[in-house]
Formats: sequence, C-alpha cells, structure tokens
Amino acid sequence: LTPLLYLFDDKVLRKTAEAADPGDYEMPDGEENQVIIAGFGRFGQIIARILRAKHIGFTALEISQQQVDFVKKYGNKVYYGDPARLDLLHAAKADQAVIFVLAVDDVNASLATAETVRRHFPHLKIFARARDRRHALKLMEAGVHVVIRETYLSSLDLARSVLEGLGLDDYEAEKAIKMFRAHDEARLASHLGEDHDEARLIDAAKQAAAELEEIFAEDAEAERKRGSVVD
Amino acid sequence: LTPLLYLFDDKVLRKTAEAADPGDYEMPDGEENQVIIAGFGRFGQIIARILRAKHIGFTALEISQQQVDFVKKYGNKVYYGDPARLDLLHAAKADQAVIFVLAVDDVNASLATAETVRRHFPHLKIFARARDRRHALKLMEAGVHVVIRETYLSSLDLARSVLEGLGLDDYEAEKAIKMFRAHDEARLASHLGEDHDEARLIDAAKQAAAELEEIFAEDAEAERKRGSVVD
Repeated sequence: LTPLLYLFDDKVLRKTAEAADPGDYEMPDGEENQVIIAGFGRFGQIIARILRAKHIGFTALEISQQQVDFVKKYGNKVYYGDPARLDLLHAAKADQAVIFVLAVDDVNASLATAETVRRHFPHLKIFARARDRRHALKLMEAGVHVVIRETYLSSLDLARSVLEGLGLDDYEAEKAIKMFRAHDEARLASHLGEDHDEARLIDAAKQAAAELEEIFAEDAEAERKRGSVVD
Repeated sequence: LTPLLYLFDDKVLRKTAEAADPGDYEMPDGEENQVIIAGFGRFGQIIARILRAKHIGFTALEISQQQVDFVKKYGNKVYYGDPARLDLLHAAKADQAVIFVLAVDDVNASLATAETVRRHFPHLKIFARARDRRHALKLMEAGVHVVIRETYLSSLDLARSVLEGLGLDDYEAEKAIKMFRAHDEARLASHLGEDHDEARLIDAAKQAAAELEEIFAEDAEAERKRGSVVD
C-alpha cells in the first residue's frame, strides 16, 4: 500500500541530513562509546538494557522529544536529535564507535540514517531493525550488515506454539518453522537488487507459497517413508 | 505516554462488539477450520503461510478493508470485519474452532477481541501478539493462553548479533541473551494483577536494571573463578 520511496536520491538525503536548524538537537556529552543506538523505542531499549547489564557503553539517539522525556524517567541516558544528521553523528563520536544499531521504526528515517552512516562513517558495522521485507531489502541494498524484520521472530515463535497447540510434537513444530525460515530467508536474499514493485512482489509471494507447499509435501512423504521403514 | 484504557469495562465492550452496523462485514463461507486468525498484517500472514504449507485450514479476519483488498491480491483468503464482533465470530464458526490467533496490532482492538472470545467461546485457546509489556500483561490477565511481545524476539536476536559484533564468542553472547530473557519473563509474570500505572512501571524498570546488572556481575565473577581453576 505504501508507495515506494526512493530515499537514496541525493537531494532528499542532503535535505534530511543538513537542512534542519543546527541547534535542533541535544549535544551528547562527548564520551566515546563503542555502540551508538539510533532509535530508543521498544526495540532499541531492549538492546540498551542488555548492553548496560554487560557494562558495554552506548550512546542513544532518539528523534522524538516526547519519547526522550519518557525514557529519561526510566533512568535512561538518551539524546534528542535526528540520527540522520551528520552534525549529531559527529557529536555522538560516530567516528570512534564500532557498531551502529539502527533501531528507528520509521522506514524513511531508517533508510536516510543508513545512507548517511554508510557514506560518512564507512567503518561502522550497522545492525538494523526492518519493518517488513521491502524495508529489509532496501537496508541490505544500502550496505547494512545485519538486518532483522522486527516482528519476524515473534511471529515464527507464535506459529510454533500454534502448531503445538494443534497437537504436533515439538520436533515436528520446530522442523516446520526451520523449513519455513530457511526458505523465506533464501528467498529474501534472492530478491536483492531487483525492482521491488508490487506486481513483482505479488508474483514472488505466490511462487513462494507454492514452493513452500511442495517442500512441506516432500518432507511429509520422506517422513512417511522413514516411518514405514521402522514399522 | 498512552493513557491506560480500561477496556474491560462492560459498556465499552458491548459497544465495540455490538453497536456497529450489522451488515458491516463479509460473511465467511461457512467452512469450519481449526484455526481462526484475527488480524492479517505482517504477523498474522506469517502464521497463515506456515499453516497453509502444512495444509492446516484457517479462517482469517481483518478489520481494514484496504488491507483485505491488498492481501487478496497475494492470493489470500481473508474476510473483512471486526473480529471483536460476536456475529462475525459466529459466522467464522468460532464455536467449531480450536485455536484463536489474536494477531491484531491495535492494543484496544486486541483487548476487546480477547474479551469477547473469552466470554463467548471459552473453549478456544488464544495465542496473541502483544505490542509491549503493558499490553502483554493485560492479555494475560484477560485469560489469553500464550502471549508474545511482537518485537521482543527480533530485538533479542539483534542484541545477540551486536554482542558477537563486539567480539564476544557465541557461547557468551547466547548466555547473555538467555539470562536477560529468563529475568525479563520472570519479572513480567511477577507483575500480573498489579496496577500497571506509570510510577510503578518506572520503579519496576529501575529495580529490574539493577537486578540484571547484579545477575550479570555474579555470572562474570563465576566465569572468572571457573577460568582461574583451569589456569
């Protein structure tokens, strides 16, 4: 439904990165941390909590002042500003960091941030949250190192529980999820660099569903044969 | 930030379940399926794709006509309507189903649907997607059997990748995630039935962060001792 937005267009990017009022962010306090977390919602906060427990320093950036005020009440140290802005990234010592966690939920802001970081801090390894397949593909194409779809693993886990709830044993349920995942991730990788227009995505999804049914049917047949050997 | 909405109030519920125009949904075609999927966004669709590959029948309900039109293009069979409505649930043969997958993303709609299903179809096992901790607690308190926070597992997985990216080995990274998860889930269960007001949540979160640091420090000390025995 969402029209494709080609954010990698230079003009759009420059506007996002540079045109805002230069005073429009909070200056990080100059400490150098190995990790920068951009986006401090549900996703970024979980990562922050794990890093904090491991005593790994991080600098957190969040574009919503309201969200910054909110998470500060919980004792978090997070700076207000647009992580797609080069001046904020410099203030956050992106040049000294090792890892950039891109946990921004908005697709366009996420892509703009990825592009700015790739261009100006190419040494940073980017670990990103993606909204959906299309966002994931665009992040991978922008050179992001690790991309995970934000609801993907929870939906797979709930699917596993549903299969068990229907009476499948642990082994069967787990195997179904693994087969699905292997197929789904291979398919994602195979679409890299293509036009992600809707007609093509629809064709690909229909083909994937047919392939998946076939893979599952072949597996059921193989299991049946294994079973009959034991009988 | 979102004010608490006490959706279990009878009047609100009755309004949600009954006041809409009775013709305002698409009639499922009367087939009986073991599974009903309410909400056919990113989350519900993944579950549907796995069930389809396993040849397990399901009836999918979605409140957004736009989303219904969209996913139908992909060859999906999904009915338009509000899954919190008793008439639609009857039309979907909820009385004959075994499992109800609550994959609605909107928190209030999700809670209203859970309540209607629990009240009118108490034999159904409900497997639900939750937006966040507070939503998860409310679903558990409403008697939902399995609840998963929608971005939880993907954020944990990205955290594991970040730890590995910082040089931790697989074992260390995996252990940190498991320790975090055990603590986080025990904490969630311990808050069942409490008032989930902001002040209390803030206190609980600060306490949790302190506990977690302690657990991790104890573990690091234990690992150090194990290490020195080997030396």
